[in-house]
Amino acid sequence: MGDPAGIGPEICIKALNNSELTTNCEPIVFGDSSVLSATAAECGLSIKLNIISAFEFFDAHQRPTDNKGVIVVDFKNSVKRFRKAAVSAESGDAAFKYIDKAIRSHDLGLVDAVVTGPINKLSMHAAGHKYPGHTELFAEKTSSTNFCMLQYSPVVSCSFVTTHCGYAEVIDLLSVDRIVRVIQLTNDAFLKIEQREPKLIVCGLNPHAGEDGLFGGREEERIIAPAISKAQDLGINVVGPYPPDTCFIEPRREEFDCVVCMYHDQGHIPLKALAFEQAVNTTLGLPMIRTSVDHGTAFDIVGKNQADPSSLIAAIQLATKLAQDSSTRIGKPKIMTAKNTKTANQSGG
Amino acid sequence: MGDPAGIGPEICIKALNNSELTTNCEPIVFGDSSVLSATAAECGLSIKLNIISAFEFFDAHQRPTDNKGVIVVDFKNSVKRFRKAAVSAESGDAAFKYIDKAIRSHDLGLVDAVVTGPINKLSMHAAGHKYPGHTELFAEKTSSTNFCMLQYSPVVSCSFVTTHCGYAEVIDLLSVDRIVRVIQLTNDAFLKIEQREPKLIVCGLNPHAGEDGLFGGREEERIIAPAISKAQDLGINVVGPYPPDTCFIEPRREEFDCVVCMYHDQGHIPLKALAFEQAVNTTLGLPMIRTSVDHGTAFDIVGKNQADPSSLIAAIQLATKLAQDSSTRIGKPKIMTAKNTKTANQSGG
Repeated sequence: MGDPAGIGPEICIKALNNSELTTNCEPIVFGDSSVLSATAAECGLSIKLNIISAFEFFDAHQRPTDNKGVIVVDFKNSVKRFRKAAVSAESGDAAFKYIDKAIRSHDLGLVDAVVTGPINKLSMHAAGHKYPGHTELFAEKTSSTNFCMLQYSPVVSCSFVTTHCGYAEVIDLLSVDRIVRVIQLTNDAFLKIEQREPKLIVCGLNPHAGEDGLFGGREEERIIAPAISKAQDLGINVVGPYPPDTCFIEPRREEFDCVVCMYHDQGHIPLKALAFEQAVNTTLGLPMIRTSVDHGTAFDIVGKNQADPSSLIAAIQLATKLAQDSSTRIGKPKIMTAKNTKTANQSGG
Repeated sequence: MGDPAGIGPEICIKALNNSELTTNCEPIVFGDSSVLSATAAECGLSIKLNIISAFEFFDAHQRPTDNKGVIVVDFKNSVKRFRKAAVSAESGDAAFKYIDKAIRSHDLGLVDAVVTGPINKLSMHAAGHKYPGHTELFAEKTSSTNFCMLQYSPVVSCSFVTTHCGYAEVIDLLSVDRIVRVIQLTNDAFLKIEQREPKLIVCGLNPHAGEDGLFGGREEERIIAPAISKAQDLGINVVGPYPPDTCFIEPRREEFDCVVCMYHDQGHIPLKALAFEQAVNTTLGLPMIRTSVDHGTAFDIVGKNQADPSSLIAAIQLATKLAQDSSTRIGKPKIMTAKNTKTANQSGG
C-alpha cells in the first residue's frame, strides 16, 4: 500500500478497480483497511475490501472466507494514527512493516511476487529504518548483494550501476565487476521479458563519453569498456560506452532493449521526460520478483482524487509477466497467492 | 561551414537552399567553395555559389558584385587538402580559421551574428587549437569570462553552469556566484527570445536534489539554493533546486521557459531525447550573437546525402530572431551583412 500518508492508498484503490488487472493475477494488499476505506470515502471511490488480519494470513496461513472484493492483509492501525500528507515516524514504520511482511510472505510461499507502492524515506528514517530506498531494503531482507535497479517502460528502459548515492560518490562505486554484473542481470531480465536475446547499450560516464580522453579521468577506457568486452565474451549482445546524451535518442530507443546507466539521473532524467508515470521500477538479482511504482508519495495531491494509478498498474502487469515467464505453473498466473507454492525463482529457475 | 571533413558543408548547402530562410537574413558562408561544390556534386544537390575571397571580404571590405547565389567567403583551400570523414590537422585548422575570421568580421561590423557548423575537436586539437569546444573559443576570442551555454529548442531549453569538463570536476566548478550569473544570463536571453519575463527552474546536483541531505554533500543547501535566493532578490522569476529527474517532465516543460542545469549531461540527455536535431546551441554572455548546430561532424554519414539540416536551420532562425530583437534597425533583419553597421550588442544594446 505504500506510505499511508501518501497517494499509495488512493492508487491501490484505483488500480484494483481495474478488472483487466485482476483477471491475470490475484492481488493482495498489505496495508491498513482503515486507511483504504477512509481514502475511498474521501475521493468518492468505491471498493469492496475482503479483510484478513496479518496474524491470520501469516501465522495461521488462512485465506479470506469468500472471493468477493480485494483481499487486504490488515495491519489494523487506526486511520487516526497517521498524519495525512506529512512526514511521520508512524507512517514510515507502517510502510516498512507492510514491505517486511510482504517479503516474509514471499519467503513462506504465500505470494509469487511483491509490488511496492510509494514510500517516504524521511518517514522511514524517522521510524529508525535507515534504508536509502526500497531496493536496499529488499536486498537486506533477502541477503542479496549483487542486485541492481531496472526501470522498465514501453518507451525506454534503464538499468543502473549505481543509484541512491551522492553525485560525487559515483566514480568510486564504478568497477569492471560491478558493470559486468549489471549487464548480466539486465540481459537475464530481458530474456524473460522479451522472450528473446536482448540488445543492450552502455552509457559512458563523462560528457561525450570522455571524447577519447578530452574530458574526465578516462573512466570509459579504464572501467566501462573492459566491462563491456567481458560481457561480450560471455555472449551478451551489448555495445558501448556511448556518449550518454546519444543513448536515449529515438533511433537508439528503438534499436536497443535497455540502456545500462552509470548513475541515477543519467537514466531517470530521460525516463521521466519520455515516459512519466509509465515506468516500473524492478530490482534485479533478488531471489524474488519485485516491482514498484516509479513515483513518490506526492503529498501535494493526497486526498484530492488526482493520483494516477498508471505506474502501479504497469508494475503489477510487469510482475505478473515475470511471474508467468519464470514459473512452471500451468494456467492462470498469480502475482500474489496464498497457496503454499514456491516461485520458480526460489527453486532455482 | 564547420569541419570540411564532416557533414558541415552538406547541411550548409541544404539549409541555404531554403528560400524561407534567406527571406529573413543574408547568409554568408565562411568556408571553402571547393568543398561546397564537391559536396553538392557528390550528394546530387544543386547550389549557386557567389564567391568572394577572404582577403577581399575582410581587408578590402568588398562585396560580391551580383546578388545571385549564396555568398561564400572563400578560404581557397583545394578539396584535396582534406581527408573526408577523418580526423586531420588540416581540417581542424581550416575549421578554426573559418570561425576565427567570422568572429573578426563581427568585430569589424561586417556581420550581425555568427552561426557555427559542426567541428571535430580532435582535428582542432591536432592543429594545435586546444579548445574544449566552440564556446571556449568564442570566449577567448572575445575576451569573455562570464559566459554560459544555452541549448534552445521548441520542446525544452537548458542553460548550463558547467559544460565540457569531466564528471568528477563538476562539483569544484559550482559556486553561488557562477550559478547566479548563469540564471541572470538565461533570464536576459529569454527576455529577448520570448519578449516577456521568463520562468526558470533550477536542477539540483544529486539524485532527488539530495533529498534533504540523504544523498550527497548538501550541495543543494550550500550552493544552489543560496544562488536561487540571490537571483530571486534580483527580481528574477526562478525556482529550485528541484530533483533533476522531475525538471524535464511534460508539465514542467510547459510551465518553465528554461531549465538551469548543473552539468552537461543533466541537460543534454533530455534535450536530445526530446528534441533531437531541433536544438540550437547558443553562447550567452558574449559581446555578440552566436548560435550553433547541436550535433557533431557525423563522419559515418559524410557524402551519403543523409545529413539533416534542421539544427542548422534552427540555429540560423534563432540568430536572426536575436539579431532582430536586440537591434534598433527597422526593416529586414540580417544575420550576416557586409554593410558596415554595428549590431545593437556592440553598441551596448
